[in-house]
Formats: sequence, C-alpha cells, structure tokens
Amino acid sequence: MATALIILGAGMGTRMNSDLPKVLHPIAGAPMLVHAMRSGAALAPEQTIVVAGHGAEAVEKAAKAFDPDATVALQTEQLGTAHAVAQAKDALAGFDGDAIVLYGDTPFIRPETLEAMIAARADHDVVVLGFEAADPGRYGRLITSGDTLSRIVEYKDATKTERAVTLCNSGVVAADAKTLFDLIDTVGNENASGEYYLTDIVGIANTRGLSATVVTCEEAETLGVNSRAELAGAEALFQAAAREAAMADGVTLTAPETVYFAFDTVVGRDTLIEPNVVFGPGVTVESGATIRAFSHLEGCHVSRGAVVGPYARLRPGAELSENVKVGNFVEIKNAVLDEGAKVNHLSYIGDATIGASSNIGAGTITCNYDGVFKHKTTIGADVFVGSNTMLVAPVTLGDGAMTGSGSVITRDVPAGDLAVARARQENKAGFATRLFAKLRAMKNKGA
Amino acid sequence: MATALIILGAGMGTRMNSDLPKVLHPIAGAPMLVHAMRSGAALAPEQTIVVAGHGAEAVEKAAKAFDPDATVALQTEQLGTAHAVAQAKDALAGFDGDAIVLYGDTPFIRPETLEAMIAARADHDVVVLGFEAADPGRYGRLITSGDTLSRIVEYKDATKTERAVTLCNSGVVAADAKTLFDLIDTVGNENASGEYYLTDIVGIANTRGLSATVVTCEEAETLGVNSRAELAGAEALFQAAAREAAMADGVTLTAPETVYFAFDTVVGRDTLIEPNVVFGPGVTVESGATIRAFSHLEGCHVSRGAVVGPYARLRPGAELSENVKVGNFVEIKNAVLDEGAKVNHLSYIGDATIGASSNIGAGTITCNYDGVFKHKTTIGADVFVGSNTMLVAPVTLGDGAMTGSGSVITRDVPAGDLAVARARQENKAGFATRLFAKLRAMKNKGA
Amino acid sequence: MATALIILGAGMGTRMNSDLPKVLHPIAGAPMLVHAMRSGAALAPEQTIVVAGHGAEAVEKAAKAFDPDATVALQTEQLGTAHAVAQAKDALAGFDGDAIVLYGDTPFIRPETLEAMIAARADHDVVVLGFEAADPGRYGRLITSGDTLSRIVEYKDATKTERAVTLCNSGVVAADAKTLFDLIDTVGNENASGEYYLTDIVGIANTRGLSATVVTCEEAETLGVNSRAELAGAEALFQAAAREAAMADGVTLTAPETVYFAFDTVVGRDTLIEPNVVFGPGVTVESGATIRAFSHLEGCHVSRGAVVGPYARLRPGAELSENVKVGNFVEIKNAVLDEGAKVNHLSYIGDATIGASSNIGAGTITCNYDGVFKHKTTIGADVFVGSNTMLVAPVTLGDGAMTGSGSVITRDVPAGDLAVARARQENKAGFATRLFAKLRAMKNKGA
Repeated sequence: MATALIILGAGMGTRMNSDLPKVLHPIAGAPMLVHAMRSGAALAPEQTIVVAGHGAEAVEKAAKAFDPDATVALQTEQLGTAHAVAQAKDALAGFDGDAIVLYGDTPFIRPETLEAMIAARADHDVVVLGFEAADPGRYGRLITSGDTLSRIVEYKDATKTERAVTLCNSGVVAADAKTLFDLIDTVGNENASGEYYLTDIVGIANTRGLSATVVTCEEAETLGVNSRAELAGAEALFQAAAREAAMADGVTLTAPETVYFAFDTVVGRDTLIEPNVVFGPGVTVESGATIRAFSHLEGCHVSRGAVVGPYARLRPGAELSENVKVGNFVEIKNAVLDEGAKVNHLSYIGDATIGASSNIGAGTITCNYDGVFKHKTTIGADVFVGSNTMLVAPVTLGDGAMTGSGSVITRDVPAGDLAVARARQENKAGFATRLFAKLRAMKNKGA
Repeated sequence: MATALIILGAGMGTRMNSDLPKVLHPIAGAPMLVHAMRSGAALAPEQTIVVAGHGAEAVEKAAKAFDPDATVALQTEQLGTAHAVAQAKDALAGFDGDAIVLYGDTPFIRPETLEAMIAARADHDVVVLGFEAADPGRYGRLITSGDTLSRIVEYKDATKTERAVTLCNSGVVAADAKTLFDLIDTVGNENASGEYYLTDIVGIANTRGLSATVVTCEEAETLGVNSRAELAGAEALFQAAAREAAMADGVTLTAPETVYFAFDTVVGRDTLIEPNVVFGPGVTVESGATIRAFSHLEGCHVSRGAVVGPYARLRPGAELSENVKVGNFVEIKNAVLDEGAKVNHLSYIGDATIGASSNIGAGTITCNYDGVFKHKTTIGADVFVGSNTMLVAPVTLGDGAMTGSGSVITRDVPAGDLAVARARQENKAGFATRLFAKLRAMKNKGA
Repeated sequence: MATALIILGAGMGTRMNSDLPKVLHPIAGAPMLVHAMRSGAALAPEQTIVVAGHGAEAVEKAAKAFDPDATVALQTEQLGTAHAVAQAKDALAGFDGDAIVLYGDTPFIRPETLEAMIAARADHDVVVLGFEAADPGRYGRLITSGDTLSRIVEYKDATKTERAVTLCNSGVVAADAKTLFDLIDTVGNENASGEYYLTDIVGIANTRGLSATVVTCEEAETLGVNSRAELAGAEALFQAAAREAAMADGVTLTAPETVYFAFDTVVGRDTLIEPNVVFGPGVTVESGATIRAFSHLEGCHVSRGAVVGPYARLRPGAELSENVKVGNFVEIKNAVLDEGAKVNHLSYIGDATIGASSNIGAGTITCNYDGVFKHKTTIGADVFVGSNTMLVAPVTLGDGAMTGSGSVITRDVPAGDLAVARARQENKAGFATRLFAKLRAMKNKGA
C-alpha cells in the first residue's frame, strides 16, 4: 500500500519570538521539519506534502533540500489542524493509499512508531498515535473501549472521569487518504477557538461506522517545541540520547556532556572523543580514531588511527586517510590528506590534496583564492613543506619535494627538488640597541 | 527624598581562602561589590558609601571604577554590622534623606526590591528586607504583628514558636539616615560574639515608638557568598537566569548550558549562539548575527548579519559592521571592520580600520607594536590583502589596493596598486632528495 | 609488616565494547588500573602483582609505566576471582606478610581505607572491605555478628532476612598471604556459574577457626566500571570531587562544570581558571596564575602571576616562569620561558628557551624539525622578535637582539643586533585595479 506524508508546518510559532518559521529552527544541525521528514522517510512515502504558511518559501527550500520531490501546500490562513490537512487535498488528488499526518515541530517520532501505525491500518480505518502521559495536564485524552478509540476529548471539554484518563493524544493520525479528506470535509468550527480540529475526525468516523484505534509510543517521542527554551530542551534530549548511543556502540566520551553531535554523525568503535567537541552535519569517523579537545568537524571523514586536534577545524570536504594527524589551530577545507600525512600547527589547507606521509610545516597556507576564483594545490607523497610556506595555487609539489621555510611558492616544484624563495639575512650590528634606546627616550620625553 | 547607599564590604571572607577581598570576587565578569552597587544605582543615590576593611585600597579602586563619586569609609576592626554601618556616619554627616544598607557579598537584590523598600518608608521609620525561606535553618527570624515588624530574633535566641516562623531576615535595612545612626549609637555588644548587630535597631526602634515593617523579596535575591563553591553557585544561578532571559528575548542558544554571559551582555533577537561561547564584559550583539562555537568576546560590538567564529576572539575595541565575517583562529583588537569585510583565518588585526568589502588573507598580521609604541594600520575599501601579509604600522592601504602573499608592507600602498615584497623562487634540482638521504644516513649512524 | 598488592585486571569487559582491556580505560588521564595502583601505593607495598588476561601485554606495559617493579601474573582462563588471585601465588612464593586484593576496574578506593584494613589485620585473620549500600540491590551481603564477619552470601542465595542486610561486599580482601592462598586452595566451583569465588574464603576461614571482620568505607569508593556509560559516570564523579577540592583550596573556577582535571593536577591558591579548560597529566600551576578560557595544558608548569590563554596550548616540557604571558592560538612545547616573557599571538614555540622580558611577535615559529632531527632555538633576554619571524633551529638570538617582521633567521643574531631577511617592497601602480578587472571579466564570461 502506498503511503503519503502530510507534514504540518504553517504555524508562526509566536512564542519562538523569531522571524524564522518555527519548523526551520534546528535541532542537532537540521531543521525540526527535516527531523519529521526523516522519520516519515522510513515509510518510503510515494508523496510528501508539507503544509506551509509563515515563511513558506524558506520552508519549501528546506523541504526540497532534504527531499527534492517534496511538495509544499500553502495554508494562507491558520484555521486549525483539520484546515491545515485539507490544504494537502489537491496535491494528493491522484493518490491512492494511506496518508499520515505529522507535525514539523514534533521532531522525535521514531520510524518504528510510524510503521506500527501503518500496520494497525490493516484492521482499522483511522489510527491515532497516543502516549501514556506522566503528567497528562491539559493534553487531549483518548477515550477507548477495548482496542477501539471512541473519541478524542479536549481537556477543557473533559468530564472528571475523562480527565483521569492518562492516555493522551499526540495529534499524529493515519488513514486512507480519501477517507481522511472525506472526514475532514465534515469537521466544523463551532467551538471556543473557532478552529477546525483534526481530532474531531475520530468522533465522526465512529458515527459513520468506521473503526478507529490507538497505537502508543513513548511520551518523549511526542515532544513538541513552542519556545526557544523548549527548543534547547529538545536539543538536550537529542544530545543525551546520541551520547548514550555512542557509548553503547563502543565510543569513549571522556566528558559526554560536552560533546555535541549532529543528527547524522557516525562514529566508530574505540574512537576516543575528548571534552568539548562539536560535530556539524555530515561527519563520519571510523573506528580507532582520536578527536581531541576543542575540535569542530563538519562534512568530513576521519579514518582509522587519525588524530584530530586539539583545536582542529575540519570543514566540508576534508577527507583524512588512516593515521593522518591534524593538529592545533589548523583548518582543513575541501582537501584530501593521504595516509600518514601531518598538518600539526597553525595552518590553513583548502582546495588541496596532500600525498602520503607528507609533512606540512607550521604556519603553512594554501593561497587558494585570488579574490575571484579558487585554485587547487597538489602536494605529492613524502613532501616536506617548510614552516610558513605560502602555496600560491594553482601549484603542484612533486613527490619528495621540499620547500624552505618562509617561502612563497608560485611555480611548481618538481619531485625531489628544494624550492626556496627567501631574502638573505643581514645582521645590523648594534642596531637594536640603538633603536630601543631612541624609542625609550621618545617615550620618556612624551611622558 | 534623597537616598544614600551604605554597602558593607569590609569582611575578610575567611572561607574564600583568598588574598582578594571577598567582595571583589567576580560573578559574570564583575566584582560582587559592583553587582550590589548596580542594584543600588536604580535608586539614583545622592551618595554611595562603601565600608571597606580588608584590602580596602583594592575595594576603593573597584568601587570608584564603577562610580567615581563613591566614597570609602574605613572599618579597621570588624566588630559587627552595626559597627560597620557606623563607620559611614561621618561621610553622611551633611546628608538629609534615607539610607539603605546593602552587602557587598549579596549580589542579586533586584532594583525593584530596593524601590519597594524606599516606598514603604512613607509609612514606616525602619524597613527591613525579608524573605520566605524554603528551609529557614539558622537564619534570623522576623517577628511581625500585622504589618509591624516587632523584632528580629537570632536563631540561637529564638523560642520554639519563633523558630517555626519562616519569614527570615536578609540584613538589608532602610531608614532615615539620622534615625539610623541614632539607633545604631544605642546598640550594645552584650552577646555571645561580643559584636554590635544591626538587627538590634528594630527592637530599639519599637521601644522608642518608631514603626518598623518588612518588605519581602524572593529568597534567591538574598543569596550571600561565603566560599568559592558558593561563588560558583552564584555564578551558575546568574548564568541560568541570563540564558533563560536571552532565549525568551528570541536568541537561539544551541546549548545554553555552555554559553557564559557577562553581567552587561546584550544580544539581539534571532541571533544564533552556538555551543561554548564566552562573553566578557562590554559586549553588544545586534539581531540576526551568528556567534559560532568556541568564540570569546570582550568589549566589542557585532552588527546584524555578522558571523563570528568558530574560534574567533574579539577583544576590546573590536567593532564589526553588518555582514562582517571573522573566522577561525582570528584575534581582533581595537579595530573597526566596515560592512562586509572578511578576516577568515589565522590572523591578528590590532589597532586598525578595514574598509567595506575588503578581504584579509589567512595569516595576516598587523605589526602594531615596535617594542615601545603602538601604531595604526589603515586599510581602505575593496582591498585584497594576500595571505601572510605583514602590515608594519603605521601604514595605509588605499581603496582597491592589493598585496602579494608573504609580503612585508612597510610603506603605504596607493589605491589600486599591487604591493609585493618577495624574493624570487628558486628550485634546486634534486636537493631535497640528497638532503633527506644525508639526514637519514646520519640518523641511522646515530642509532 | 610487609604488604603485597594483588590487583585483578584480567577481565575482558564485554560491556565496554572495546579492544582495549577494561582496566586500561582512562579516568582523568590515567588508566583505571593506575588509579588502583596509586591507592595501593600508600601501603608502600613490597610487591605488586597485576593479574592480567585479555590484552596482558598492554596491561603489563601500563603497570610498569607506573611502577617498574610491578609484576604481571597471567590468568589465561577467567574462572572466577579466587582463581584470579591464585595466579599470583607463584610471584609471591617468597613473600612473607599481608596480601591485599584490589580490582583494576575499581579506581576510587582511598588509601586511608586500605590502611584501615591493614590495621584491622592486627586482630583478625581475614579483613573484608564492606559498605553500607543506599540501594543494596544484587550486591553480596556481609553477614556479621558483633565485629565478626560470619560469611558473605550472594544475593541469589540469600534468605529474605539476609537480603534485608544493607552491609555489602566490595570484594576487597586483606589477609596474610600464606593464609590467603591456603584458603583459596580449598575454594570449589560447585555453583551455578562454575566459578571459583574469592568470597568463599570467609566461610572457610570461619570453619577453620580463623577470624574474619569487616572494615567499611563510603559506597562511592567501591564504584566499579563495566560499561562506557559507567566510565563516563566515574569520570564525572572524579571531576566533581576534584573541582570541589580545588575550590576549597582557594582556586577560583568561574564555571567548575567546564574544567577537566587530570588525576595529578596541582593548582595553587588564588589562581583563576576560566570556563572550558582541560588539564592533561603532569600539570602544576602555582598560586596567583590565570588560566583563561579554552586553554589546554599537559605536562607543564605555570608560575605565579603567569597568564595563559585564552586558546593557549601548553604541551609537555613547557615551563612558564613568573609573569609570563602566553596568549591566543599559541602552542608551547618543551620550552622554558623566563620571567616576564611574552608570546601573545598565533605562534609555535618548540624546543626553545626564551630569556626574561623578551617579546615574541605574532606568527613566530621555531622551525625545530628538519624532517629527521629536532633542533633547539635559544633566545636571550630582552629580545624583540618581529611578527612572523621564522627561527630556523639550531639558532641563537643574543640578549637585546631584534628581528624584522617576516624574516627567516638561519644564522645566529649577536646581542643588540637587528637581523632582517626581507625583500624590498615594490608598488606596481594600478596593477590591482587591472588584475581584478580582468579576473571579474573572466568570471562573467564563464558564467
């Protein structure tokens, strides 16, 4: 059976106090919306419709960045969840199968939970995701009888007996798409808020002889975000889980509470991560690597035995082969470092390849930008780049070549050659003594 | 009615285990004394008297750094709080109005609380600040009858009934200055410690037919600091509140628990602050800026759209205009960067101005210090400074000028010119191969 | 009476999910095994036997790195704790005195606790270390009568009454070595696991008329580590205690929760440590120093009044004398800096000495490595090294010497001389304007 995702993301999120649409606020390096899309992706949906309103253009861009086939349905007025879902109707006109309604500000629903909902559709027309709330507070309550969900009652409309129910509504719903839109068409807005509530479809379904049921998940999965403090809380929850999972997988985190993972970080067994390490999106670290303190990695790959940091910054396109060393105050961008290459101190390596076992001296810079274009630096194997060498790209250093420290290399260096560009040292006898005497005299006079 | 502040700060703070006077230990980048002075400043006091003893000279310096008109009264012996207040009598000899007694080791009293105390003076001669204690423990108890404060009883002197009272004494007192000193004159020291207690004035006031009352505040406001662990606790309390306030104001903190604000940090809405950012005093960040991980800012201004870090250090006098970028391992001090200027990698920019849209290459250094004097570097708009350029100040680069990488610039560069100071590259054929062969042979022989 | 340590460290630690033997996983920069050895060292043991199995070679290396006289006894099969102890019998064949059994994965037993156990041996044949468990759960229970320990009962074998006992078994045991091995010889493995349990010796001792007793310690001392999450928990426990101890000793930690100490870090009174500082092993900091944010220190010494960081990395062999300043993005390795020397920005100083009051300019690099050998840089007192100076070692700068910025110094500079190695600056009129016009034209054509 084909599946379609309808992800609601039109809300302004007033309490976020932000110009950014609420569903684009990030957790672990990805917009909340993308977290919801990633969960839904486990169902291999035939269509994904994101219902957008505030900042719809930005929402569309983010949605398509994750899934180019995603469609955006515009909700120009925010008249309630049923109204939001209704905006997806046209986009799903030709669709035959199940639709599942997710929320762009509810990032933690697990794929397994959605699969369980789809499975439950075999026996029921409407499937609602519920959870046992530790403190049900003002959540809507799910009123059940056996495995039948009779209705969803809002807290304010609930009787005392109903309020004692702890099974609460997450808002996530699955149904045959046609059934879903049929039910929504009959939802009214005769209530205090004047909104069309998606929850009303359960009662309507029951009056029509359709069957509704509940699938349950952990309460933490249903966590929604309405303010920046809640966003930070969701981030903390994500990080706590990611750290625990990494440790269970055999990663050593000296101080787990100081390591920040991205939503897609992969770290191998017996890798050591020291305190204060930040992972941006797109990082894979193999087994047996070491990421030292104060390192920052994004869009890069670190192979077995490589040692990164402290104070190393790996930017997108950095590829470190086995046993590479990247040391302190070093930035690597769009560069492949072959086995055993070393860039230990105070360097910028961008748009480059470095051959195996080459040693890049302290203060080396690949001058990759001429103000308009970027150019490439190619360094062979077993090259010794002297300290503070400027490599003015495009430029190539052959295998086993060497540069003298302080040289500006503008032409290729053949294999085995030494390139030097250096002025001769001149010692001016007594000059420093005289200069400082003069400067200090000036200072005293001035004072 | 004029107001005078009397801030007690003479105590040694034995439990701090420090040579620094207790009230000078900092919270959020300012001495505790200054926090107390800042609270009191809301009353626009006519006079501020700091009673100092241990390290009085340093205390005076800190007090005057915040308020040049503050006076220090010396308390050479520490004979109790009433004795401490008495030392301020001479300094307030000509003063007519209310005096309020604060404590230099109690940094969190809110200005609103002090204003409420002064307001309560309209109907009462003596106003004491109290709080409902969650765990009253050994605090002094405020014994009241209606809105009259009958007396303050020390825990050790309290009856069982009095110990059941949870309204406790903060020590903060407001009264007409003359009345205050009159009352203090009659306080005795016939007690176990042989000290003169300020609290005794309430009982004395009542016997004289004067009226005393209580104004209450949150318990957290009255937090005092007596050890470094309590200092760290107070810092944590401050930071938690500052982070929550920033988020409520629309600032995104990816990991709030890793961001450290100073007492006066200002951050605009929709600014993103990544993990591990430290703010020293004097920082303002406009809306819509980005402060990336591992950045350190002090005494600087960051405008809308600017991106700072990761690993950027902005020091006092750094002024970043809109859309400026300051990247990794870059230090900026006393320098103005115009709109869109970029300093992306491994640079030191000190005592400089950089024009709009100029690009400063990696490894650039403004050589601003000659060993005795500091000099200025002036860079125009649309300038391209090549990597590893040394700008030997004083020096000026005109609009649209360019420098070759690795150049030491000692003379001005006119607009549109290219300045190069570079030795010619020479490739010595096979030299590297021979050199390494020789070195490795030496090593083998040595081994 | 002579004492011998038997430290059990043969377990694989399956739940660690690691190739590294469990007891080599580090806490605060030292393998857990070394923590146990350090505790035991307080007894000045005549012999130390480490029982190793999985990764025995690595375990032996770590043991001997801490104590060259330590012996490793091999346990090729893991048949239980009594079997493990039995492997130490041969190594202790000629030994006369007390043996105490410790665990390589139980790092926090205090030396005082072991001393109390040895003291209790005066009156009892077997001394077992117990603790009052907050939640006894499945720990073995110590069944006592007066000060006699009757037997140790495993939870699964315990009666309801026995399960109500909260005095639990830590596993640590002391006895005369000959008695210990005699008792162990009679331990059988007729139990569910088919293992030989060390705990059985207590029952056997009692049946033989020997006396056993319990010495108790805090539950936290007996904390064992079985997974990486527990390892992180143990690290957190260590750090919390180390931070509290530092503050009690008069160290200011602005944000204690962000400072990571090593097992042997020493910091003096009135030293200030800002947020995000990591100490590796072997660091001593005198009183009145300042370690600023984002600094990383290993194997170094920082004297009174010195200021380190922010973003400073001190590596092994860095020795900072009084009032030295090491600033941002600076790495110091194997270098002695005399009183008042300054290295403030973006420098690498390795294998060097720097004389008093010398000032090292931004971007300075000691070029200490020629690809095969390391060489030394010697800088005198009152030297002014210009920015971006390359000091090609071996090289010496005399007192009061100076280098021009951007110079590559390959020959010694006599005292008071100025050394310059610099090409003359040439300004090419209008070149930058023409070049950028051309590049932009190319870009437009390309687009």
